[in-house]
Amino acid sequence: MTIPAIGISLGDPGGIGPEVVLKALATPSLLPETRFVVFGDRRVWDAERAALGLSLETRPHEGESAPSAPGFYFHDIGAASGAAVRGAASGENGKSSFLAFKKAVELAGKGALDALVTAPISKTSWHLAGLPWRGHTEYLDSLYPGAIMTFWSERLKVALLSHHIPLKEALGRVRKDVLLDFFRALHRSLAAIRSGVDELLVAGLNPHAGEDGLLGAEETAEIGPAIEEAVRQGIPVSGPYPPDTVFLKALDRPAKMVVAMSHDQGLIGFKLVAFATGVNTTLGMPFVRTSPDHGTAFDIAGKGVADPRSMLEALRLAIRLSASS
Amino acid sequence: MTIPAIGISLGDPGGIGPEVVLKALATPSLLPETRFVVFGDRRVWDAERAALGLSLETRPHEGESAPSAPGFYFHDIGAASGAAVRGAASGENGKSSFLAFKKAVELAGKGALDALVTAPISKTSWHLAGLPWRGHTEYLDSLYPGAIMTFWSERLKVALLSHHIPLKEALGRVRKDVLLDFFRALHRSLAAIRSGVDELLVAGLNPHAGEDGLLGAEETAEIGPAIEEAVRQGIPVSGPYPPDTVFLKALDRPAKMVVAMSHDQGLIGFKLVAFATGVNTTLGMPFVRTSPDHGTAFDIAGKGVADPRSMLEALRLAIRLSASS
Repeated sequence: MTIPAIGISLGDPGGIGPEVVLKALATPSLLPETRFVVFGDRRVWDAERAALGLSLETRPHEGESAPSAPGFYFHDIGAASGAAVRGAASGENGKSSFLAFKKAVELAGKGALDALVTAPISKTSWHLAGLPWRGHTEYLDSLYPGAIMTFWSERLKVALLSHHIPLKEALGRVRKDVLLDFFRALHRSLAAIRSGVDELLVAGLNPHAGEDGLLGAEETAEIGPAIEEAVRQGIPVSGPYPPDTVFLKALDRPAKMVVAMSHDQGLIGFKLVAFATGVNTTLGMPFVRTSPDHGTAFDIAGKGVADPRSMLEALRLAIRLSASS
Repeated sequence: MTIPAIGISLGDPGGIGPEVVLKALATPSLLPETRFVVFGDRRVWDAERAALGLSLETRPHEGESAPSAPGFYFHDIGAASGAAVRGAASGENGKSSFLAFKKAVELAGKGALDALVTAPISKTSWHLAGLPWRGHTEYLDSLYPGAIMTFWSERLKVALLSHHIPLKEALGRVRKDVLLDFFRALHRSLAAIRSGVDELLVAGLNPHAGEDGLLGAEETAEIGPAIEEAVRQGIPVSGPYPPDTVFLKALDRPAKMVVAMSHDQGLIGFKLVAFATGVNTTLGMPFVRTSPDHGTAFDIAGKGVADPRSMLEALRLAIRLSASS
């Protein structure tokens, strides 16, 4: 087994990203045999270290290949022209968080990193910086159109057929061909990272999963046939199950993953079960990307009170999924 | 305070309805100062009592008015022509459970009963009996078109803007006029039963509640304006909130109720939080109707192992909401 190389982008300098990354890396229980490369603005990192009183040392990292020895490395993307603004969105912060993320994605895409962990960016900062992408997911989508958004926690795993589009458009994606492609790509990704998932439980779209067509046609016309065809092709997938009970079927069964037909069908259930410990995991790319289940939290930035648990979970999952690949 | 008169319909004789009603009524912690009237087939009731070895005695009830003294009463709707079938749907069972329910609704509609608690019926049995309604809710809808489906538990309360219709049709109901009428009717009902709910938290329809129109138009065009108008009219309502976090905002805050835009938007969250203890509560009628959060459970019928907790919660809530009216 090779030692995993994990890239970490610091997120918005005005938010809690730098703080939770530092706190998480300083946690002794984190696997030591890892090559961690943090991407960000060195001044922000040093200021945060001083503020938190954490002595975590990093070696400088440059170039396009990963360091060969385990340990902590810092890849300085250079300071933005102005000073970092704390607790609020700003164009300078947006530029800084984007450059760090972009560099890390570049190295991961080249195979230098096994996985990427992203601290939260601010959509407003990106917008103020004039960036055309709304966030991490949209940028990754533009590079890897088949990227799949999944959510992982101890108790529940969920994959989303669609994410940041209006619900009416999401309904338009509930088609046999789209679903079959999705099942195939998801299954392939899960197998590649040896996820341990052995069954995809597919949610229906309508109340009671359509009740034999009485409460909606998508289950009998699209979802059901896509499942049948996938099973014929050897993909372990079942359903469609009533949307309001499929999560209970998967709860506390680590080898099951729910396939949700829309962003909120999946995330209402997931956030209730796994708030503060959930990990957002992007599959269907040449590398795995994980991120904590929270935002920049500008209101508590710089106060030293941010909870690093979700970042820690994101790091652990990235390591686990890299180690097994 | 008058002594509440609570009607209870036995549900499908082939399911666990009679068992959970008997077990719940035999629970000593249930408020004693209540007039309970059970509606069903006397032979089914006696057979279930004998099978469970419970000695609960009931006095016979007839006619159109409630008994005046507290205690347990049985309103015999007469035996169906054949013997009750156990553990499976049948037309005779459907007829029996419908007649019991219909009689109880009739008396409640006349004001003789303060609330109605319904044990589960089988949709298949109703269908085999040639009934045109798919279940309790559809029958009540036909009598009281403004009936509102809500779900209550210790930790979470949810109201559904629409219920047993395809999701595409449900989206068509997300209109300012429909929403405003709904907020008004729900607020009026909650006030009438002194529910203690002091704020309605309204879910958006799209990811991130549409993110200022970027991810969907319904929040800015319909839901937002309906909320503003409702607030102007003195109704305590707020939102629209992102669908995947509105449940966390209401969790463990008994004075908050989530308004969900569709059946599963509401029930995915509710069932994860309150499985086996949730109570389905119909408002917007001249009387309150509650029912347990489970079905006939034909697979365990007649085995004496059915869990009466949800029925007990349904009875307790019916009593509480009646006592305060």
